[in-house]
Amino acid sequence: MKLVLLSGGSGKRLWPLSNDSRSKQFIKILEDNDGNHVSMVQRVYQQLMTEQLNKSSIIATSKSQVEMIRSQLGSNVPIVIEPERRDTFPAIALSAVYLYSELNVDIEEVVAVLPVDPYVDDDFFRKVSQLESVVIESETDLALMGVIPTYPSSKYGYIIPVKEQGKKDYLPVSHFKEKPSENDAQNLINQGALWNCGVFSFRLKFILNMVKELGMPLNYEELLKQYHLLPKNSFDYEVVEKANKIVVLPYEGYWKDLGTWNTLTEEMGSSVIGKGKISEDSTNTHLVNELDIPVVVLGTSNLLVAASPDGILITEKSASPRLKEMITDFDQRPMYEERRWGWYKVLDHTKFEDGNEMLTKRICIKSGKNLSYQLHDKRSEVWTVVKGQGSAVINDQLQIVKPGDVIQIPLRCKHAIKADSDLEIIEVQRGSELIEEDIFRLELNWENIENQCKTIESLNI
Amino acid sequence: MKLVLLSGGSGKRLWPLSNDSRSKQFIKILEDNDGNHVSMVQRVYQQLMTEQLNKSSIIATSKSQVEMIRSQLGSNVPIVIEPERRDTFPAIALSAVYLYSELNVDIEEVVAVLPVDPYVDDDFFRKVSQLESVVIESETDLALMGVIPTYPSSKYGYIIPVKEQGKKDYLPVSHFKEKPSENDAQNLINQGALWNCGVFSFRLKFILNMVKELGMPLNYEELLKQYHLLPKNSFDYEVVEKANKIVVLPYEGYWKDLGTWNTLTEEMGSSVIGKGKISEDSTNTHLVNELDIPVVVLGTSNLLVAASPDGILITEKSASPRLKEMITDFDQRPMYEERRWGWYKVLDHTKFEDGNEMLTKRICIKSGKNLSYQLHDKRSEVWTVVKGQGSAVINDQLQIVKPGDVIQIPLRCKHAIKADSDLEIIEVQRGSELIEEDIFRLELNWENIENQCKTIESLNI
Repeated sequence: MKLVLLSGGSGKRLWPLSNDSRSKQFIKILEDNDGNHVSMVQRVYQQLMTEQLNKSSIIATSKSQVEMIRSQLGSNVPIVIEPERRDTFPAIALSAVYLYSELNVDIEEVVAVLPVDPYVDDDFFRKVSQLESVVIESETDLALMGVIPTYPSSKYGYIIPVKEQGKKDYLPVSHFKEKPSENDAQNLINQGALWNCGVFSFRLKFILNMVKELGMPLNYEELLKQYHLLPKNSFDYEVVEKANKIVVLPYEGYWKDLGTWNTLTEEMGSSVIGKGKISEDSTNTHLVNELDIPVVVLGTSNLLVAASPDGILITEKSASPRLKEMITDFDQRPMYEERRWGWYKVLDHTKFEDGNEMLTKRICIKSGKNLSYQLHDKRSEVWTVVKGQGSAVINDQLQIVKPGDVIQIPLRCKHAIKADSDLEIIEVQRGSELIEEDIFRLELNWENIENQCKTIESLNI
Repeated sequence: MKLVLLSGGSGKRLWPLSNDSRSKQFIKILEDNDGNHVSMVQRVYQQLMTEQLNKSSIIATSKSQVEMIRSQLGSNVPIVIEPERRDTFPAIALSAVYLYSELNVDIEEVVAVLPVDPYVDDDFFRKVSQLESVVIESETDLALMGVIPTYPSSKYGYIIPVKEQGKKDYLPVSHFKEKPSENDAQNLINQGALWNCGVFSFRLKFILNMVKELGMPLNYEELLKQYHLLPKNSFDYEVVEKANKIVVLPYEGYWKDLGTWNTLTEEMGSSVIGKGKISEDSTNTHLVNELDIPVVVLGTSNLLVAASPDGILITEKSASPRLKEMITDFDQRPMYEERRWGWYKVLDHTKFEDGNEMLTKRICIKSGKNLSYQLHDKRSEVWTVVKGQGSAVINDQLQIVKPGDVIQIPLRCKHAIKADSDLEIIEVQRGSELIEEDIFRLELNWENIENQCKTIESLNI
């Protein structure tokens, strides 16, 4: 059995902690068994490891999340990178073709698809494993998982099974209902309806056949090139609604969509994460502070305070689902990003009256990692090394760097830097347009240049 | 008539906007007639100008507030600097001696003392002017101003006048009562009691005699040296309670002590100051944001949100007087300071595990101003110029600076910088202990060094 984890969304529903580069599943706000703060993705991956499912798993996501996933889950996780955002059907089709043509997975193998961030008990993943035998035994196209509802929510999709007297764990599906009214939801629940939690399983050949029928290639590299031709549709509409025989496996246990601050704070391990405090007389109040300055919350009720370099949110909890309307016109660059090589934080970004901009960043490059060899067309940079050891390459010249060193990088100057121990630099950018996209990446063979330098050194002696 | 404005307090009652270097009277949160945000001090000084009292005024304050006063009121305001904080009596005695021995004010002249930050109508200052004739006409030692109460506050001091049938504007004082219960306050008000608003007037000789009787000098420079010998006592206890004849001039008009967030927000011109927004369904909610990042407030009631580089406060308004207990253990350096030469903002302050610290500042030096010639024992600095033009002196060598220039300042390197137009630099400090006090100021004659350089230049030609 193979697992495909879908990591989507760049939503702002958890602003200011989620942004275009950090979707909600990457916010480190939950607690693991050791009391460390972990993200939803990290929690799920830990659960997969417990069930020994991680080695059978691949993650499908967009380019913008790759560095974040590598930073949080390590560099060995296999990732299928969607060339563009095109909804869940294309992502699942691409993943299926990847399993088939890159990993040589047998077409009879069962594949389960699930979101990367369900908030569930470990039990949930045992049920996911069980889907393999359900697909085989039921001889159906699709086996879904359905959560036994705990209240008549009008926000979820419902799977209505056929009532059957039997000894089987799974049930045939009669039909589906998206977001019914609360009344209708209660009626559906009375009929035995289940919440659709976005978990689908099928034999690999089922999806491969669909791809073939669309006239698309079963070769991964080829499909990547034609990805834009796949129908921009959800798996629900494109596959589930058209399938002949579907069964559902009920799951009775904890399941929660931590999509708004309201629901998320219910799962926070402590009421304060980060620097700050809440007065003792405050009730049902939570604080998440990713800034370096303290936050004081005094005499409040039902309040969520979240602060990050992107902004500060203070919301009455039940009002939090309305957050989206408040921030539609915010178009700010991310102020904090985790990258493959470490992280950076914007300390200051100012546009002067003369049209020039200034941006100050604190950059941390993790030991053994490096910034790629690059140049900029519209900005100069000054690096002041404040911590750690490493080496920099400036216009093909290698130099050792240590705290106190200053490196000036004019317009179009080639530069790279590598950390021998965790390296921190303050970067001051100046220029006409300071955007991440103003970057030309160049080839650099660190070993070669290091060897060259050694040769020159030895010649000098 | 002369006015002495007392600028005291380094309280944290308006944290995070007030701190050790910025007392509450300097927070720019009120609105002037043109819609500009002004501080309490600026508002009062504007009112003094309207009444043409500013030219007769001096400000008594501590060293720590001098730069802030110069920055907000200009460099021409005469300031008496208390050598140490010793309560109001010593401050008023020093101011009286300053008027006498430095400004040669006649000993018969009437002096009025008032806090630098009452929130009042212009009328108030017309009443203050009137105190001159009250002192002369009443032939008393002291004439006070009393505010006609609007409610039985238990937080103020009360002046109880003798009931007199007469045509005079002022009344003899019977006695005083500090912070009575609300019941007692109501009884006092029924007897015609007035709030003590900290305005005292007297002939200059009255205080000079007291100073003489204490065996202290009437020469300003001498008194500065012996300032620590003056009784550490308030003017109320040291003078008012011992005076023989006191009269009070009632003032019927707006008067408010903007000492807590609760009272201050009632006088804010707009509900949002700075970057951010409050949802339309929020009620009685105020936001003051001095950070560069946006703040969103959603669905709240009776809330105050205040953010500055020192921290973030979210408080239910009626709980705000309890703020002090929440921040007793905060011992943070000020993150933003206004200075004689401009301002600086701390962008980042980090202590590394090896005991070294790193601090990044954005510094703005106003056109024509300069940082003094100085050196540091425990830190090196790197300046990256990002805006403006000027010149720097590094170890006695003059150099012109412009955006993009980088200046490295090792330990014990002498340095100064002067702005020819508003100059901004990013300063990265590194060292074992990064505190403002690690500074040795040196003499520097800019003109001399500029002339020297011109001579060298001309010799070169």
